[in-house]
Amino acid sequence: MHVLPIPPDLRALPTPCLLLDEARMGRNIDRLRGRLRTAGVGFSPHLKTARCLEVARRLMTGPHGPATVATLGEAEAAAAGGITRLTYAVGIAPDKLERVTVLRRRGTDIAVLLDSVEQARAVAAAGDPADPVPALVEIDCDGHRSGVRPGDADLLAAIARALTPGGRLGGVLTHAGESYEARGRAALEAAAENERRSVVLAADVLRQAGQACPVVSVGSTPTAHFAKSFEGVTEVRAGAFVFFDLVQAGIGVCGLEDIALSVLATVIGRNREKGRVIVDAGWTALSSDRGTATQAVDRGFGLVCDASGRLLPGLTVTALNQEHGLVTGPGAGPWGGPDFPIGTRLRILPSHACATAAQHDRYHVIDAAGAVVAEWPRFGGW
Amino acid sequence: MHVLPIPPDLRALPTPCLLLDEARMGRNIDRLRGRLRTAGVGFSPHLKTARCLEVARRLMTGPHGPATVATLGEAEAAAAGGITRLTYAVGIAPDKLERVTVLRRRGTDIAVLLDSVEQARAVAAAGDPADPVPALVEIDCDGHRSGVRPGDADLLAAIARALTPGGRLGGVLTHAGESYEARGRAALEAAAENERRSVVLAADVLRQAGQACPVVSVGSTPTAHFAKSFEGVTEVRAGAFVFFDLVQAGIGVCGLEDIALSVLATVIGRNREKGRVIVDAGWTALSSDRGTATQAVDRGFGLVCDASGRLLPGLTVTALNQEHGLVTGPGAGPWGGPDFPIGTRLRILPSHACATAAQHDRYHVIDAAGAVVAEWPRFGGW
Repeated sequence: MHVLPIPPDLRALPTPCLLLDEARMGRNIDRLRGRLRTAGVGFSPHLKTARCLEVARRLMTGPHGPATVATLGEAEAAAAGGITRLTYAVGIAPDKLERVTVLRRRGTDIAVLLDSVEQARAVAAAGDPADPVPALVEIDCDGHRSGVRPGDADLLAAIARALTPGGRLGGVLTHAGESYEARGRAALEAAAENERRSVVLAADVLRQAGQACPVVSVGSTPTAHFAKSFEGVTEVRAGAFVFFDLVQAGIGVCGLEDIALSVLATVIGRNREKGRVIVDAGWTALSSDRGTATQAVDRGFGLVCDASGRLLPGLTVTALNQEHGLVTGPGAGPWGGPDFPIGTRLRILPSHACATAAQHDRYHVIDAAGAVVAEWPRFGGW
Repeated sequence: MHVLPIPPDLRALPTPCLLLDEARMGRNIDRLRGRLRTAGVGFSPHLKTARCLEVARRLMTGPHGPATVATLGEAEAAAAGGITRLTYAVGIAPDKLERVTVLRRRGTDIAVLLDSVEQARAVAAAGDPADPVPALVEIDCDGHRSGVRPGDADLLAAIARALTPGGRLGGVLTHAGESYEARGRAALEAAAENERRSVVLAADVLRQAGQACPVVSVGSTPTAHFAKSFEGVTEVRAGAFVFFDLVQAGIGVCGLEDIALSVLATVIGRNREKGRVIVDAGWTALSSDRGTATQAVDRGFGLVCDASGRLLPGLTVTALNQEHGLVTGPGAGPWGGPDFPIGTRLRILPSHACATAAQHDRYHVIDAAGAVVAEWPRFGGW
């Protein structure tokens, strides 16, 4: 299997490390932002995938947000970077409300998420009545994880009422988690329409109960790309789209050529009889995510490119240990497997970009020729 | 399901976070060190699991080592902490030899691992002939991953010869990776004996070829605990034993009551109809490791204890998202599932301790009563 020469900058990097193709990322951002702009709907990009201020600035529609986060550690890092309109889109634990109120006092307009009267009462008690915490009620549109059923008028109203005085109803939010199981355009469009209708129904129910419900938020990378209507929706959240990955390619949201993230690795062993090579990217570098295992085509722990980023057809990372990745597939070895010299550099496309990125503390940003143009730190933690 | 009161210190910690039960860890260390001391064999604990100087000092037989690492980042952190006898037990990439020689010049006696003439030539060229790099030849005892077959006299001798002048033969090393698939005492003892015989055979082959072969190293947590003989072996490596985990319990190396590591989490959602609760420990806190999926009993992404550490029988983390864990099993909910109030704190026993620990930057060290007695930072990276 022919391997193109390695760009000099990529020869100089220690492996394993995380590469971010800036041009591909830019195209991914332009595609979704253009789509949402045309639809006339707001965008609150989810920062949990990139966890990086430089990426956030390229994602957001304004310098201060809006944006979505999955932890208070992300919220605090974003706020320190000047992002002051945030939705913390994981159900609030009462113990975490103190950090929320500190953020608000310091000028960050952060909203919380909840789906129970218990949580609403905690917000009512912890928030400042002079600056009530906006709370979004999570709506269960597809049975995926959590949330209130969109037609459960009693529970929706009870939650809204229980927020006073420390909180106020900010709106409703849903996530079409089951869209990751949808296959084919029709199923994806249906998942998106179900997501939209569910959350709009919940907003209507609350409004009929006399509640203002300004925010109507939907979001998942598949539905953001396949929705035919955003009628009644005020904002879309999405995160994984910025890098894309093999799971998204398997769903059909992107092509392999759109995947902006890869792990640079070095061949540290070869076993010609077994038709495999070993690289220095194990689960510490790639994560143990096997998201494509339930898709039509199982991509293992990643697909393999040469150092220039060109896909080496059929080569897959089929097993991981802590610091080892086993690459198998067709090749020029005597038993038909891959056979690269020790020291060869390869690039692994991730199964799940959020999970792979989370294993690293920085991005080595590269241009289309493989020159390293920047190094961007990741933030994180809880 | 009855939940014991939460120790006050654990109420004060932000979640998710990593707890380390110091007494359990101490018993695990005493058990293996006592076993190896009785057998009269050396011990080179693998630091890849804990990645922590405080833990390393409790593991090692001397203040400066020996110890084993899986990355040069670990080696450099260990050296900075005064650990100066190291084995870097992942196949060496030629590009990494410069960092190895820098460590050696600064006084760290670090050995490298290889299984090819290509790598030996790279060591010969990069090392200092006045202080040749000790190289251990990796032996493939069970077809698990990499290494030279123990009886391959030609290749063993060729590697040893190719090391001159920058390297020298340090010895032979093997890892019984397939022991993780062994079930039952007899199979585990056989895996250990196969590991021992393989590496001792390779050492004999090299000695018959006129090579000194001072180090004869074996290692895996299962075989270290089940070997009946270490005859001809000079050192044992093991890492996961320090914390143990559900994979090791499934193999039969430890009991659930020996697992020293857990993730403290908070209930952030409940779904009585679906019989599950949601905690704020997703794959960022637990890892996506599903090591028990191929064992007789699938423990999902972890077993669930109350905050005091008492196992809640049958409760399992059955699904993970980035910041969500779904807990299912028997319970007092109206549909029979678990039903804890929002804010309840639970502790999750990890599927794979190395992988779960790698998701955190520190240990909150607790005593048997759940008081936090220390905070120990983890080192890491490549």
